[in-house]
Amino acid sequence: VIVVVPEGAAEFAAPSGWEVVSVAASGALPDACGDARAVVLGPPLGPSRAAELLGAVPPDVFVQATSAGVEWLLPIVRPGMTVANASGVHDGPVSEWCVAVILAMERKLPAFFDLQRSGRWDADVNDVTARAVSPLAPIDDLEGKRVLVLGHGSIGRALSARLEPFGVSVTGVTSRGPFALAELAAHVAAYDVVVVLLPLTPATRGVVSAEVLRAMRPGALLVNAGRGAHVDHDALLGALHGGHVRAALDVTDPEPLPPGHPLWSAPGVLVTPHVAGSSVRWRARAYALAARQLARLARGAPPVNVVAGP
Amino acid sequence: VIVVVPEGAAEFAAPSGWEVVSVAASGALPDACGDARAVVLGPPLGPSRAAELLGAVPPDVFVQATSAGVEWLLPIVRPGMTVANASGVHDGPVSEWCVAVILAMERKLPAFFDLQRSGRWDADVNDVTARAVSPLAPIDDLEGKRVLVLGHGSIGRALSARLEPFGVSVTGVTSRGPFALAELAAHVAAYDVVVVLLPLTPATRGVVSAEVLRAMRPGALLVNAGRGAHVDHDALLGALHGGHVRAALDVTDPEPLPPGHPLWSAPGVLVTPHVAGSSVRWRARAYALAARQLARLARGAPPVNVVAGP
Repeated sequence: VIVVVPEGAAEFAAPSGWEVVSVAASGALPDACGDARAVVLGPPLGPSRAAELLGAVPPDVFVQATSAGVEWLLPIVRPGMTVANASGVHDGPVSEWCVAVILAMERKLPAFFDLQRSGRWDADVNDVTARAVSPLAPIDDLEGKRVLVLGHGSIGRALSARLEPFGVSVTGVTSRGPFALAELAAHVAAYDVVVVLLPLTPATRGVVSAEVLRAMRPGALLVNAGRGAHVDHDALLGALHGGHVRAALDVTDPEPLPPGHPLWSAPGVLVTPHVAGSSVRWRARAYALAARQLARLARGAPPVNVVAGP
Repeated sequence: VIVVVPEGAAEFAAPSGWEVVSVAASGALPDACGDARAVVLGPPLGPSRAAELLGAVPPDVFVQATSAGVEWLLPIVRPGMTVANASGVHDGPVSEWCVAVILAMERKLPAFFDLQRSGRWDADVNDVTARAVSPLAPIDDLEGKRVLVLGHGSIGRALSARLEPFGVSVTGVTSRGPFALAELAAHVAAYDVVVVLLPLTPATRGVVSAEVLRAMRPGALLVNAGRGAHVDHDALLGALHGGHVRAALDVTDPEPLPPGHPLWSAPGVLVTPHVAGSSVRWRARAYALAARQLARLARGAPPVNVVAGP
């Protein structure tokens, strides 16, 4: 039985009985692709190479993505294919990134980085009476803060578990409530931090709209580890420059963010280049999931994490 | 009954029966100090003003500090005085700062801040095959990491509770074990992160010695939220420049760190200006503790957090 995997997937250990065929990022596809039972997608195969590959394999293959978001993949799979995402694989790194940036913004680490670069010890920050004169003060802590997590799947649950010992109250929004995403503007003012972990679908695109940003509590923090298109970036730029909200963004619109884009230098924003899921260990975890899925297929068990199928 | 508090302590609400006398950072001390039953110390009163004040109050007053560390206070109290620290008040902010800097260093936030400042989206960081060419890669996560916490009192326990959901294993070192501080060099290589939360005493001064730094695991992270004098800073500078360890320091030796000091620009170090305990809410919490202590005194109950007494 043949499984097609990306070239260089050294961490992939196929279960016994599977023959591994490697596909490079370019060049002719191996003939054996035509007999594949399963395809594992991941770097260095980009969306267009993945589309080419999915056109060359049998129409009923099992497709395992190594990303949690599959909005790029669903348009290129064929109707008979079963598709699974990498839900679970990125829970640790992505939830860690979210806590890292929430704490960095709350504890003013960007301002302290700047102080360190300039070699200055700003003792004023210790003195709340200096609040008006120090851009660093006041520093607050998380105890008692309210965090809203839009999209409360496995990453959201991992995030909640990591935040709760800080004494925050976490509210996760799913399709089962406690309110509909369409009503977000009416509820968002109750929260100090709003984290976007949604998949990108027609229903979630633009969910953090100009209206939602206006309704956010002054000084609230928007954290986006979903997709750039979840957020109205023109409205966000306005809200940042107006000092109304702060933001920590791992995903942007457009992405990559081009040199000179105003978001790089907007006040109160932290931008990282789509690395929330990055970890030196993510490939090993993703390929371990793929191997478990193949073992399930081999014994006739249904795969987990199925997001599309015949 | 008179309690002396720092001028501007608006958050202090004395229990009924107590008369409040305010003391400014300079100028003549109020005559009423001579009749005080209790003294609350805190900003804007520094160590020398505190010494002056403790010389003017009765020799058996109760002294409540608003800091957790009292190494600056113990030399200036008189033998008949009972001294309490602010243990507990800073648990949330200090443990938060520790998690914030551990995550910031693990998720490479200082490097991403620099990337943002230069307006560059470094996609290489997503590709572990680019490990050798990107100073940002590899990013790792905390799962499975081992954290050693030197000094496992109330802040250490708060830190452990906040770290455990990340899948790390936390070992706290107290006078009861699991090993003596004097044996630190023989044990430290087993840990990825070493956090100093010790009080500064003759037994803990210099505990992170050149020998301990040499014995640390390559790439390990030293976090100091204790006192600068816990760490041999010359040896630390060498270990940073050698790429042997990384460090996140809220306290330094000397402190404040002067402009031009080599620690500001050493590789792999994050310095914050003694703000781990800072929070816009710390004064309210510290003065609430002071009020609870006065209520205990008034009803004849022993104060909590006593660190020195007759």
